[in-house]
Amino acid sequence: MIPALAPWRSPLEQALHNNRSQAHSRYVQLATVRPNGRPANRTVVFRGFTAVGNELSFVTDARSEKCEHIHHQPWGEVCWYFTETREQFRLGGELRLIGVDSPVECQDLRQAGWQRLSDAARSQFFWPHPGEPRVDPDRLTLSTPDPLNPPSSFCMVILSPTEVDHLQLQGDPHQRQHYYQPDQPDSDGVYAEWRAIALNP
Amino acid sequence: MIPALAPWRSPLEQALHNNRSQAHSRYVQLATVRPNGRPANRTVVFRGFTAVGNELSFVTDARSEKCEHIHHQPWGEVCWYFTETREQFRLGGELRLIGVDSPVECQDLRQAGWQRLSDAARSQFFWPHPGEPRVDPDRLTLSTPDPLNPPSSFCMVILSPTEVDHLQLQGDPHQRQHYYQPDQPDSDGVYAEWRAIALNP
Repeated sequence: MIPALAPWRSPLEQALHNNRSQAHSRYVQLATVRPNGRPANRTVVFRGFTAVGNELSFVTDARSEKCEHIHHQPWGEVCWYFTETREQFRLGGELRLIGVDSPVECQDLRQAGWQRLSDAARSQFFWPHPGEPRVDPDRLTLSTPDPLNPPSSFCMVILSPTEVDHLQLQGDPHQRQHYYQPDQPDSDGVYAEWRAIALNP
Repeated sequence: MIPALAPWRSPLEQALHNNRSQAHSRYVQLATVRPNGRPANRTVVFRGFTAVGNELSFVTDARSEKCEHIHHQPWGEVCWYFTETREQFRLGGELRLIGVDSPVECQDLRQAGWQRLSDAARSQFFWPHPGEPRVDPDRLTLSTPDPLNPPSSFCMVILSPTEVDHLQLQGDPHQRQHYYQPDQPDSDGVYAEWRAIALNP
């Protein structure tokens, strides 16, 4: 069963459309929690919604710190600020990684994610270990990426939001709409419908 | 004693200068950790460095969730993406709040922060409790802010970075420089100098 479009999808798609002239409108900031309990925050590129459900996809290097964070604490929050229309979406929910060792039924999604990348983006997965002391780039011989099959360093990050906060800074006072899905399924194991409430900004 | 300018200040000031044509180049994303251990992430406006030290200042409403987060876990990480020059700074460190109940020696900083705000920004501190169900704005009678003295809802947020990561996406491969200050002071109670290392992006 394909879940219905969540109610925050329409304002988010609208914002993407209204800000489409700016390449950076697909850049978002993803917060995770480090194993020492401190927050981490970095820019990632939105790679589209998954075909089923209301999930956002991103890609990462399996050797990056964020994978370690997600293994330790799978909750994340994306902050997405649209500079043209001056609106912000905050999307909090569980993150999951789809890597080379993930179940075979996830590998189609991973392969499709790889195939959608540009050549330049693909070649980054052959760079030396991210976050380690710099290797002189002149001393590297980089492999030419296979455009069909991802290397083991290629990993998808999937965010399944359960809370979304939409703030619009145009107009006075600002508008703030909060969408949420109860954390716990009901006694039949079914997650409740999304609810929406207007909040003070 | 005024601490020396940290080595990441110069590239950050340069980025601010190179991106100054865009108002949003002063907007950053601040990650904190909620009392339930999950991350939170939102856009805040950079309000300048404090006069002493290498600290970044922001303002917030004392009633906002982020104050609760910071009381619970004072560590934060700012992600600052500059759209024009395609570079990112991640600044992690301790956060402190300067509110109406903070020691008297902090109140000059708080007052100066208030006086630098625009009238529109000041008036937001008289809006109803942020994050609570929406109050009909037509039913509100808002006070006219005193331009000299902040209301009790006005709070400064000060970030004292101990780790800074600077990523430059222009050029191939990307450049990544990491600056850090050891967490623990040495046996004389003195914090070590900043160190810098080039990392693989």
